[in-house]
Amino acid sequence: MTISGKNLIAGQWTGDTTNGFTAFNAYSHEAMPTTFADATKLEVNTAINHANEAFISYSQLSAEKRAQFLRTIGDQIMALGDELIDTACAETGLPTMRIQGERGRTIGQLGLFADLLEKGEYKAVIELADNDRQPLPKPDTRLGYLPLGVVGVFAASNFPLAFSTAGGDTVSALAAGCPVVMKAHAAHPATAELVARAILAAIEVCELDKGVFSLIQGKNYAIASQIVTHSHIKAVGFTGSERVGMILQQQINERPDPIPFYGELGSINPQYIMPEKLAQDTQAIAQGLVASLVMGQGQFCTSPGVWVVIGGENAKENDSIYQGFVDSAAQSLSEQAAGVMLTPDMCQSYTKAVEARKAISGVELLATGLSGREQDCSAALFATDFATYESTPALHEELFGFSALIVRCDDFSQMMKLTELLTGNLTASIHAADEDLDLSAQLAQTLAYKVGRLIYNQMPTGVEVCASMNHGGPFPASTNIRTTSVGSEAIKRFQRPICYQNMPYALLPKMLQS
Amino acid sequence: MTISGKNLIAGQWTGDTTNGFTAFNAYSHEAMPTTFADATKLEVNTAINHANEAFISYSQLSAEKRAQFLRTIGDQIMALGDELIDTACAETGLPTMRIQGERGRTIGQLGLFADLLEKGEYKAVIELADNDRQPLPKPDTRLGYLPLGVVGVFAASNFPLAFSTAGGDTVSALAAGCPVVMKAHAAHPATAELVARAILAAIEVCELDKGVFSLIQGKNYAIASQIVTHSHIKAVGFTGSERVGMILQQQINERPDPIPFYGELGSINPQYIMPEKLAQDTQAIAQGLVASLVMGQGQFCTSPGVWVVIGGENAKENDSIYQGFVDSAAQSLSEQAAGVMLTPDMCQSYTKAVEARKAISGVELLATGLSGREQDCSAALFATDFATYESTPALHEELFGFSALIVRCDDFSQMMKLTELLTGNLTASIHAADEDLDLSAQLAQTLAYKVGRLIYNQMPTGVEVCASMNHGGPFPASTNIRTTSVGSEAIKRFQRPICYQNMPYALLPKMLQS
Repeated sequence: MTISGKNLIAGQWTGDTTNGFTAFNAYSHEAMPTTFADATKLEVNTAINHANEAFISYSQLSAEKRAQFLRTIGDQIMALGDELIDTACAETGLPTMRIQGERGRTIGQLGLFADLLEKGEYKAVIELADNDRQPLPKPDTRLGYLPLGVVGVFAASNFPLAFSTAGGDTVSALAAGCPVVMKAHAAHPATAELVARAILAAIEVCELDKGVFSLIQGKNYAIASQIVTHSHIKAVGFTGSERVGMILQQQINERPDPIPFYGELGSINPQYIMPEKLAQDTQAIAQGLVASLVMGQGQFCTSPGVWVVIGGENAKENDSIYQGFVDSAAQSLSEQAAGVMLTPDMCQSYTKAVEARKAISGVELLATGLSGREQDCSAALFATDFATYESTPALHEELFGFSALIVRCDDFSQMMKLTELLTGNLTASIHAADEDLDLSAQLAQTLAYKVGRLIYNQMPTGVEVCASMNHGGPFPASTNIRTTSVGSEAIKRFQRPICYQNMPYALLPKMLQS
Repeated sequence: MTISGKNLIAGQWTGDTTNGFTAFNAYSHEAMPTTFADATKLEVNTAINHANEAFISYSQLSAEKRAQFLRTIGDQIMALGDELIDTACAETGLPTMRIQGERGRTIGQLGLFADLLEKGEYKAVIELADNDRQPLPKPDTRLGYLPLGVVGVFAASNFPLAFSTAGGDTVSALAAGCPVVMKAHAAHPATAELVARAILAAIEVCELDKGVFSLIQGKNYAIASQIVTHSHIKAVGFTGSERVGMILQQQINERPDPIPFYGELGSINPQYIMPEKLAQDTQAIAQGLVASLVMGQGQFCTSPGVWVVIGGENAKENDSIYQGFVDSAAQSLSEQAAGVMLTPDMCQSYTKAVEARKAISGVELLATGLSGREQDCSAALFATDFATYESTPALHEELFGFSALIVRCDDFSQMMKLTELLTGNLTASIHAADEDLDLSAQLAQTLAYKVGRLIYNQMPTGVEVCASMNHGGPFPASTNIRTTSVGSEAIKRFQRPICYQNMPYALLPKMLQS
C-alpha cells in the first residue's frame, strides 16, 4: 500500500502533505520517503466534533457489538501483513521479532477487552428497595458505569503498536464506549497510518459511525494543546517523557472543567539485590540484569535503571562479593552489541545523557558496550556510592536507554534510606535468597509505597497483560496514581459510576436489570 | 465541656485564641462566646508532618483494628451526648431532629466502613503462575490496594456532622488507611472541636499514633492553601462552593506532583415532570417538590433547584394543566415557614441572589414563603420560559437555598434541548406516569450523561449511604467524575492499585495470600 501521509478525520483522509514532516529510518537515520501533513486546527476540530457526535450512538452500542468491533480491528491489523512489520521496524529500529511480538500483544489486548465486554465489563451493585425500613424506606439503588466521552490518546515512541494507534489506551477507551481521537507519534507516522486503515476497515465492517476514530498526524506542538483543551475531550491518555507529559498536564489544568489525564511518564525501576542473593547468585544476577537492561536498547518503561547493592570498602564482609558482581556485570555489558535508538534525536539525547553522567564527580564508568556505526549507540554501566547518589539529583532521573547505575550501599539501613529518596516508579524488583526474607520483608513494606508493581526475583521488563496487572504508580510513574494503563482494569479510566434510583426496568441498562 | 477554641495538632490542643475568630449563632446572628485560634503555619506543618509519620504505622494496621477504631469514634461521638446536638444546632440553625438524624447517619457511615473492612475492603485479583505458557511463562500476579498517604479534608457548611470532622471524607480516608488533617468549617468550629475530642478519645482507646488525626481551625485563607500544596498531602476531599473549590483546584494544579482533588461543588438537580404525570398528579407533584425544596431551607447539595415542565401558551393542550401545577406549587410555597440559613453571610447571599433573580427579564416571581424575623429568610419560587433560560447563563447556576425555578418548555424537544444545556449535576429526577415511558426513556438516555444519580419518581433530597450509591457526577457536581463521596465506594478515592509479582506469601498482604 502507498502511504498517503494524510490524517484520518472521521473516515476521510485529508491534509496537505506538501509542507509537512518526515519520519526517519531509525537504522540509517535517513528521511523516509513520505511527507506527512501536520493536521490543521480545522481538521483537529472536525475530528473531535465528529467523535462527539459519534459518542451518542457508540456509547449505546451493546457490549457484544463493541467486542466484535475490537476483534475486527485485530483481524484487520493481521490483514496488513508484513507491510506493517516492515514499516514499524524501519520507523523505530526495533527488530522484526520484537515488532511481531508487539503485534501479538496488541491483538491480545484487543481480545482481552473483547472478552471482558462479553463477560460483563463491570460488576453491577444492585440493592433492592426495602419499604419497611425504619426510619425511612430504602429506595432501589443500582450502581452502573457510563463511558466518559471523547478520549484523546497520544502514541508512545517506544511501542509503535501496543501503545500507539490501536494500543492499550485506544482499546481500553473504545472498550469503555468512548470514541478516540488519536495523535500519532511523529517518529512512526506510517505505522500509524496503516493501523488507522485497519481501524477504519473495522468501523466499516461493523457499520459504526466513522467519527468513532480519527488519526491526527503532526509535529506542530499546537496540535497537542488543541486536543487536550478542547471542550469535547473528556479524558486524555499519554505515554512519554515527564517533560512533555507535564506540559500537557499544565494545559489540561487551564481548562475550566477538570478532566482526568492519564500520563505514564518516567521510571528508573530500581533493582535491589539482597546480600545473600548477591553472594549465592553473583554472576547469574549480574548477567540477568544486563540482559534485562539491553532489551530494545533499554527503551522500555520498565528498563532496570538503578541497581542497589550492599558493597564497597565500608561494607567489609561484602566487598569481595560486590566486586565479583560488578566485574561480572561489567564483563557482560562490555560484550553487548551496539544498536539503534528509536529516533536519531533519541540517539543524540542518549549519547549526551551518558556523557553527562560520565562527568558527574563520584560516578565511575564501569563498562561500555560494543561500539558500532555512527548511527548506533552503546550500552553503558556506571557505579556510585550512596552518598553521591543522595546528593546528586541528576542521578535520580531516568536516563532513557540501555544505561544503568549501580548504587553501592554500606549496609541495609542505607538501602532503606535510598528507598526513602525514591520518587514514584512503575516497578521495583527485590532479588533475594531465602535467607534474605526478613530484610526483604522490611524493604517490601517501604518499597511498595514507591511503585505500581513490586516484583520478587524477576526482572521488570515484560509486562503481563492481565486482570491483576498494574502499570502505573506514584508520580512521575503516573500522573494518576489510582489507575493502570495495562491490563483489563485500564478500562475503568474511561468509565464513571452512575447510580440509578427507583428506575423501571425498561429504563435501566441491560446489566442492571435483574 | 468548655470549648477551648484550640487546634488539635497530633494529640495536642494548641493555639492562641486571643486574636482568633468567632462563629455566629445561626438563629440570633450573634457572635458565639468562644474565640477560636487561626492555626499558624507552624501548627499546620506540625499536623501534616505528624500525620505523615503516623502513616507508617497506621497504613500497616490490620483491617480489623481500623474497623474497631471507626466504631470507637462512633461510640465516642454518641458519648458527647446532647452537648454535640445543641452546639451543632446553635452553630448551623438546623433543627434538633435534623442534627440528631445527621448524627445517626455519621455513626452509620462509620459502621458501614467498619463492616466493609471486616468483610475485606477490596476484591483481590489473583492470577497464579503458569510456567508452561507459550511463548513465555506467566508469572504469579496479584492485584491489591494501598492507602495513598495523608489526606486533607475540608468540612462542609451544610453537614456539620456527616460531611465534616468525622464525616464521609474523613471516615473513608481513615478506613483506607490514610491519616487525616481536617480543616474545620469556620461556621461550626465548636461542633468540630467536640467531634475532634471524640476522635482523639478513640485514638487513645485504640492506642494509635496521635498523628492519625489533626483538626485545624481557621478563617485565614492561607491555611487552606498551605494544606493542599503540602508535599505530604496525597489527596484532598472538599465539599463546598464552586468558587472556593476551584481556587483549591488551581492551587493543587501548581504542585509539582499531581494529586487527586475530590471536590463536590455545585448542582441544580433538575426535576423533569413528564406530561402525563403532570396531568395525573398535578397537585401531589407540586407539593412534593415544594416539600423537597424547603427541607433544611434548601441547603442540601441535592436540593431541587430547577423544575422542567411542558406548559405555557405555546404548549396548547397542556396549558391548563401547567397552570394548575404552577398554582398549586405557588400556593404550597407561599405557606412555607421562613427559616434561618447556616450563617448570617449565607442569609445575606441568599437574599441577594433572590433579588438578582427577580430582576432578570423574563423571570416571574410566582410566590415567596412566609416572612419571619430579620434573621430569617423566605422561600422563593420563580418561573421562566425555555428561551429565557437558554439565553440567561445566570439561571444555569446554583442558587444555594430554598428557591426553585420552573422552566416551561413548549414541547418535549425543548425539554431535550434544555437537557443538552445542562452542566454536570449530582442528581436529576424524572417524574413520570406509565404513559410517559417512551419519552422518559429518551430523556433518561441523555440525562444520564449529565448526572451522578438518576432518579425516577422520587425526590433528590435524601442520599442513601450504601454500596450502590453514587454522589458525584460531571463537573461542577464533582471535580473528579470517576468517584463518589457517599457510600462504600468512597474508600476507593484514597486507595490505589499495586501489583505484586512472584512474591513469597510472607511478603504479601494478608488479603492476597491464598
